[in-house]
Order: sequence, then structure tokens, then C-alpha cells
Amino acid sequence: MEVINDLLDYNGLKIIQDSDAFSFSLDSVLLPNFVTINKNINNILDIGCGNGPIPLILSTKTSAYITGVEIQEKISDMAIRSVKLNKLDKQITIINKDINEYANYENTDKYDIITCNPPFFKTTSERHKNDSRYKTIARHEECLTLEQIMKISRKLLKNNGCLGLVHRPERLVEIIELMKKNNIEPKKLQLVYPKKGKEAKMILIEGRKNGKPGLKILEPLIVHLDNGEYSDQVKKCFK
Amino acid sequence: MEVINDLLDYNGLKIIQDSDAFSFSLDSVLLPNFVTINKNINNILDIGCGNGPIPLILSTKTSAYITGVEIQEKISDMAIRSVKLNKLDKQITIINKDINEYANYENTDKYDIITCNPPFFKTTSERHKNDSRYKTIARHEECLTLEQIMKISRKLLKNNGCLGLVHRPERLVEIIELMKKNNIEPKKLQLVYPKKGKEAKMILIEGRKNGKPGLKILEPLIVHLDNGEYSDQVKKCFK
Repeated sequence: MEVINDLLDYNGLKIIQDSDAFSFSLDSVLLPNFVTINKNINNILDIGCGNGPIPLILSTKTSAYITGVEIQEKISDMAIRSVKLNKLDKQITIINKDINEYANYENTDKYDIITCNPPFFKTTSERHKNDSRYKTIARHEECLTLEQIMKISRKLLKNNGCLGLVHRPERLVEIIELMKKNNIEPKKLQLVYPKKGKEAKMILIEGRKNGKPGLKILEPLIVHLDNGEYSDQVKKCFK
Repeated sequence: MEVINDLLDYNGLKIIQDSDAFSFSLDSVLLPNFVTINKNINNILDIGCGNGPIPLILSTKTSAYITGVEIQEKISDMAIRSVKLNKLDKQITIINKDINEYANYENTDKYDIITCNPPFFKTTSERHKNDSRYKTIARHEECLTLEQIMKISRKLLKNNGCLGLVHRPERLVEIIELMKKNNIEPKKLQLVYPKKGKEAKMILIEGRKNGKPGLKILEPLIVHLDNGEYSDQVKKCFK
């Protein structure tokens, strides 16, 4: 069933969701707060934008032009309607297309930033497969692999442009290898721990096209306080 | 000036130090607490053992036979005397040799665990060069590079044996690349943050020779409390 939810707590941004098809998760709130944004940014691409949380949140942080590409028609349609609902049509364009096709005809060296909250699981792993076809495509690498994301980013990023990804710790080694292979130098890493004293469950990583080696590991991002509430670090991302 | 210090707080282990030449640091206490030790371990090698803190601490955790190799005669001599002082001659052997030579004639596939707290800085970086020749060799890659450590580990580790390293965040990308190149799969990573809310200043990483892909990122290790005292996580390592 489709509903309209508040995307952020304080600034009135709304998002259309459907619990059967696609709802945004914390990953999509943390990533736009993690990527490096400055005044010189003109073009941002969000790969596999789902119902649009990352473009919508980015619009509160930059006046750059934002393109979201989503392969699933029903979900991209929700994103398109959310953009209209928030009167952001001039800043955000949602395109219903396979990003691999989109990248084929798009100009090289166009984007200052590419963001992606990709499918986390390899298609070989049956364990996490979802009943809903919508969720399977969003969570499994059926239509989009890490290698494809890197190749697309290598082509579409400007020199010194940045790719920001959210992913699982168990894929970090592969992500670093693929970034290096595609001349995207890992520059910034943040580990997301569900609670103090727990293993990391998420990673945020940013790489710079043709950047110099040298990785910074930011302060730990701890999601929940001992009492179960969101930490101030997370609350800040919802403002 | 040479002094005898307590290495750990509670079990009477002593270590001979010399502030002009070499004193152990927190890195060398965290690493032996990080590496995976079980009952089936027979042989451990510590590469560049300095005055011996890692072999000495490991002796409190395992009955495996421990070899420490140190290129600097004066420093390896301190390690040898510390081993005697603690009556650990039967368990620990310190060898004064360049590890690259040692690895040439040592048997392949011998060690269950290799540990190393290596020189952190590239020799090209003048910035951190030390006045003392002893410290320069311990901290700069003049006699031992990351690439050499990986090649040595690839040769000397048993199948499924583990290499444990402590290093700086800015070298993590290179470490992961070199491990992969040498069939050592990164399996366990822990970030060491000086305080809550600060960037990581150290990494602990363990790789398994011919291991399956899949990295675990342990809970954040936060060194100091807000009041400047060591955290319980660190105090535990000194017991």
C-alpha cells in the first residue's frame, strides 16, 4: 500500500513509499550526509535511486542539478511523484532506465558526484532472496553489480569527481579492489556500528577519480544509544 | 638510558627498554590481543620484534613456540635479555637478522601465525624521519616494506595461517591490495580511535592465507575515555 511519509524530521520533505515494493532505509539517509559536497558541484548522479530518498535529501544540501536513474518503473514512478510533491522538478530529474544503458549514451566526465546505495547481495547467495520481485532487484545484484557501478563511475565522473557508496563490511575488500582497478582512489571511509561494542554492519566509502593515495577513516558512526534511541550522530542526519 | 619496565599490569611480565633507542608503544600491546589464537597453534613468528613486546605478551596467551626476528643488534639484545629475565627462553627465541634473509632459508608453510608491527612510513616521506638511527629503522621502510612483509608471509605461513598487522589508516588500501596479491585474504579488521568522535589513528588487520573472501569489522576500539583515562577495552589488554 502506498503512503506519503516525512523523509526528514524538520524541513517538510515528503516521500512516497510502498511497503510491498520499496521503502527507503537508514543507508539512504546516511549516504547523502557522508558524501563531500562543496559549492563547485554542478552535477550529481544517483545510481539506482529507488523511490528517491538520496536525490531528495541531497537537494537540501546543494543547488547542484541531480539526476536519479532507476530501472524499476513502478518505483521510479514513486520517485517522480515525490519530486513533484516537493516541488523539486527543476533540480531533480528521475529517469526510468537501466543505468548500464544510460551510461552508454551519457557524456563522459559529466558528474562531480555519483552516489549509489546498491544491491548488497551477490545473486549467487539465495539466503537473502526476497519474495517480492521489486525487493529482489533492489537488494540482489541481478541488474547491477559492483563492477558495473565502478565502470560507469569511471566513465561518467569528472577528473577528481567522487563516488560515494554505502555497503556491507564483507564487501569492503572487493570495493577497494574494484575502485583501484578503475582509477577511483578510496579517500574517506566511515564504519557504521549498530551500537557501542558491536561489529560494524555498514560502511560508507568515498573514492576520487584519479585521486592521490591516502585514506582517512572518520569517527565511528554509532547508530543506537544503549537505550535503543537513535544517537545524536544519526538524529543530525534527519534534520 | 636502559630501564626495566612492567610490560603488563598484573602478571609480572617485565621488559627492558631504552628511551633513546626503542620503547614499545600501545600498537604492540593491541596487536597480540587482536590476533586469533586457538589451541592448535604451534609456531608463531613476529617480524621486526623490536625489544620483544609482542612475543612476550603472546607467551601469556598461548604455549606455542614463538620466534622474534629483529634486524637491529642493540634492540634484539634487549629482547633476548627480556626473554631471559622472564624465564621464557624455552618458549621464545629472538634472532638478530634481516627478516628478508631469514625468510630465504626458513622452511615454507611453517607458521600458524605471523605478527608484525612494521615501520609505518614510506622512506620517501622525510616529514617523520627521526634523529635516532634506531628509531628511523623501526619507523621507516628502510629495511622492511609492506610488500616484503606480504611476500615473506605468503611463503612462511601454513595454508590457512594468519598474518596480523597493526598499521595506519592511510595505508589500509595498500595493505588490502598487497594481501590479495599474495593470496592472503583480509578476514578481520578493527579500527582504533583515540577518543569518541575522533578519526581512526590505527588499524588492526588479520588476513588468512588462501582464505575465503568475507571481511568482519569488529567493534570500534576507543583508546581514551573523555576524561583522558584508558578505556576498559584498552585496560583489558594490559592484564
